[in-house]
Amino acid sequence: MVQVNQSYLSLQKNYLFTEIAQKVRAYKAANPELRVISLGIGDVTKPLVPAVIEALHAAVEDMGAAAGFHGYGPEQGYAFLREAVVDEYARLGVKLDADEVFIGDGAKSDIGNFQELFDEKAVIAVTDPVYPVYVDSNAMSGRAGLPCEQGRFDRLVYLPCVRENGFVPDFPAKAPDVLYLCSPNNPTGTTLDRAALTAWVDYARKNGMLILYDAAYEAYITEKDIPHSIFEIEGAREVAVEFRSYSKIAGFTGLRCSATIVPQDLRISDGKGGDTDLNSLWRRRQCTKYNGCPYIVQKAAQAVHTEAGRAQVMDQVRGYLANATAIRSALSAQGFEVYGGVNAPYIWLRTPEGTTSWGFFDLLLNKAQLVCTPGAGFGASGEGYVRLTAFGTPEDTAEAISRLRSL
Amino acid sequence: MVQVNQSYLSLQKNYLFTEIAQKVRAYKAANPELRVISLGIGDVTKPLVPAVIEALHAAVEDMGAAAGFHGYGPEQGYAFLREAVVDEYARLGVKLDADEVFIGDGAKSDIGNFQELFDEKAVIAVTDPVYPVYVDSNAMSGRAGLPCEQGRFDRLVYLPCVRENGFVPDFPAKAPDVLYLCSPNNPTGTTLDRAALTAWVDYARKNGMLILYDAAYEAYITEKDIPHSIFEIEGAREVAVEFRSYSKIAGFTGLRCSATIVPQDLRISDGKGGDTDLNSLWRRRQCTKYNGCPYIVQKAAQAVHTEAGRAQVMDQVRGYLANATAIRSALSAQGFEVYGGVNAPYIWLRTPEGTTSWGFFDLLLNKAQLVCTPGAGFGASGEGYVRLTAFGTPEDTAEAISRLRSL
Repeated sequence: MVQVNQSYLSLQKNYLFTEIAQKVRAYKAANPELRVISLGIGDVTKPLVPAVIEALHAAVEDMGAAAGFHGYGPEQGYAFLREAVVDEYARLGVKLDADEVFIGDGAKSDIGNFQELFDEKAVIAVTDPVYPVYVDSNAMSGRAGLPCEQGRFDRLVYLPCVRENGFVPDFPAKAPDVLYLCSPNNPTGTTLDRAALTAWVDYARKNGMLILYDAAYEAYITEKDIPHSIFEIEGAREVAVEFRSYSKIAGFTGLRCSATIVPQDLRISDGKGGDTDLNSLWRRRQCTKYNGCPYIVQKAAQAVHTEAGRAQVMDQVRGYLANATAIRSALSAQGFEVYGGVNAPYIWLRTPEGTTSWGFFDLLLNKAQLVCTPGAGFGASGEGYVRLTAFGTPEDTAEAISRLRSL
Repeated sequence: MVQVNQSYLSLQKNYLFTEIAQKVRAYKAANPELRVISLGIGDVTKPLVPAVIEALHAAVEDMGAAAGFHGYGPEQGYAFLREAVVDEYARLGVKLDADEVFIGDGAKSDIGNFQELFDEKAVIAVTDPVYPVYVDSNAMSGRAGLPCEQGRFDRLVYLPCVRENGFVPDFPAKAPDVLYLCSPNNPTGTTLDRAALTAWVDYARKNGMLILYDAAYEAYITEKDIPHSIFEIEGAREVAVEFRSYSKIAGFTGLRCSATIVPQDLRISDGKGGDTDLNSLWRRRQCTKYNGCPYIVQKAAQAVHTEAGRAQVMDQVRGYLANATAIRSALSAQGFEVYGGVNAPYIWLRTPEGTTSWGFFDLLLNKAQLVCTPGAGFGASGEGYVRLTAFGTPEDTAEAISRLRSL
């Protein structure tokens, strides 16, 4: 009888958000008369913008006629979209080649799968709190080791991001092989400014460390000194892969599209004294286990890069940011300690002294019928915080704020 | 510096179809005045049927309005589609639970990723010739061992399917842990009839072997005694996972949707003397590294299961089968030895004595501007054969037949 991949047995039974969903379902079943508002999972609520809808309809028409039908596409994505991504980067002053852009079905898939390219013995570092996919995907491949105290794994390197260090990770004593960075950060909503990111790129270059940079929330940056891409930093092409998503900029959470940038300059050790390029390895992976993002979805993503599309989606982003400002202000006014919410759709709330993050989750659910995400679910250093998201409708956000005020 | 997953270095540089595409591109560049017709890669050419197009437009409308907008969907797929799949199986007399159905973005992804659940030491068997994804995905995880003679890997078990055994694999001396089966077969176009499949299910039950059953081409079955699902065989629920695709039945190669069936009864060893269920493991994998198939694509897939949709797509399938019959007849009339093409869109042509499969590929390309797929690309036992596909337009198929006649 085939034996299970032992690493799967070391995982927590549920993916964090599945666990929260189960708790909320149980609460709703027990309290059918109460309306629960979610500030929990980071899902958008605004419909797709007109430019995207128009592009989708047109692409559907293509698919219904022999002349416009598109079957298997290039696994790496259509050139029209990869070139639109290259142009988008050019607006940031970053020069890319279209061969460095890989279109995927979402940053979660791409980030989750990317670790496959590395040796099982690679030392992986994550910030703490952390988006669970970085940890779980490595754990599934045996790279995280065994569970130890506080829900951690004994082979991962955790870099705490807490109020004491301004949510900027300190350099570890010994350089890991790979570091996942996310800015604007999920879950804390905080950012790495140009100086901090430059320091990390320099560290990576000096120590031969690879950075997997998750830029899923870059559209929410409002302040000037925060890079929208790690490739704005000199030398980053030698040490970083960047993951972009259409989910949060354009409401593609249910449409699924991402762009992953793997520079041609990136080399990793071949374990035999030489090196090998990461771009080809990722292409080989995608060609073997993936069959490309749907044509109609890629056409929709292309529309996000047009003048009309960009204006429409950024209008939605500003709407979500207005929610963030409102939640943040209300909580501050009530004396809560809050972080994030300025360059991100996430507010990271410090729970009152003596209340754990799951305790605060229960309190918000039971007292105010609000769903948050307990910080502890994102890692040991998330204990004492909860994450609130600004993706609700303005009405729900207003109602949530009013309930928060009456806590 | 992070070290590469050594298993990647043991792979052939290119995925088979990428290599063929490169050769064809070079030929076209050198001969721009000649029209090349592809009977190579198994991509469909007919546009999406009206029922699917209608469902797509309606779903796009949903996504453009707050009331109908769908963000993150369930990773396992929407209930509406999983239930439609359950109903489809009921038509075959197979009873499934909707929790056993996982909607994915294509059988290639699902089959490619599924092996992650198994221990690195698992003994994997494949039929030979074989769809390269089964081999390469295991090779990437170190389960195939090292390359050895004839493009094989030294840790995989190869079960030849050749004319001498009627393309039905013989039982191996020692039972492997996992066997990939594909019927109707890609690339040979041959099938396992009820007796042959029953024998394999019995073998699996007796030996504790898991069968990964690829049913991507079941819609092409025209003969009575060929099962459309492995679950038509008694006891298969204890030993088999089945992969279904919308690509070949409904032209979804560029739309991307699949259904993978993981029965609740399936248990694999936990390596500690007990067992663990595969359904939960696959759910955990998908929840961590996948974010669900796009809502609009799932609505399109649902339309395939309606009365109108089914009639329309089966009409296309019959059209492709008519191509297969025509190609098969023409080749037979010319004295070629041909297999497949009756319950499958693939014709498996025996190359003339003394001509290798790549040699015949070159001959067809240079003499007739036809692209086939060399059998050797599918494995050592594919040497001496080439695969021709019936997915062309009727016009291209007629032209290809006329060129074949003048060879």
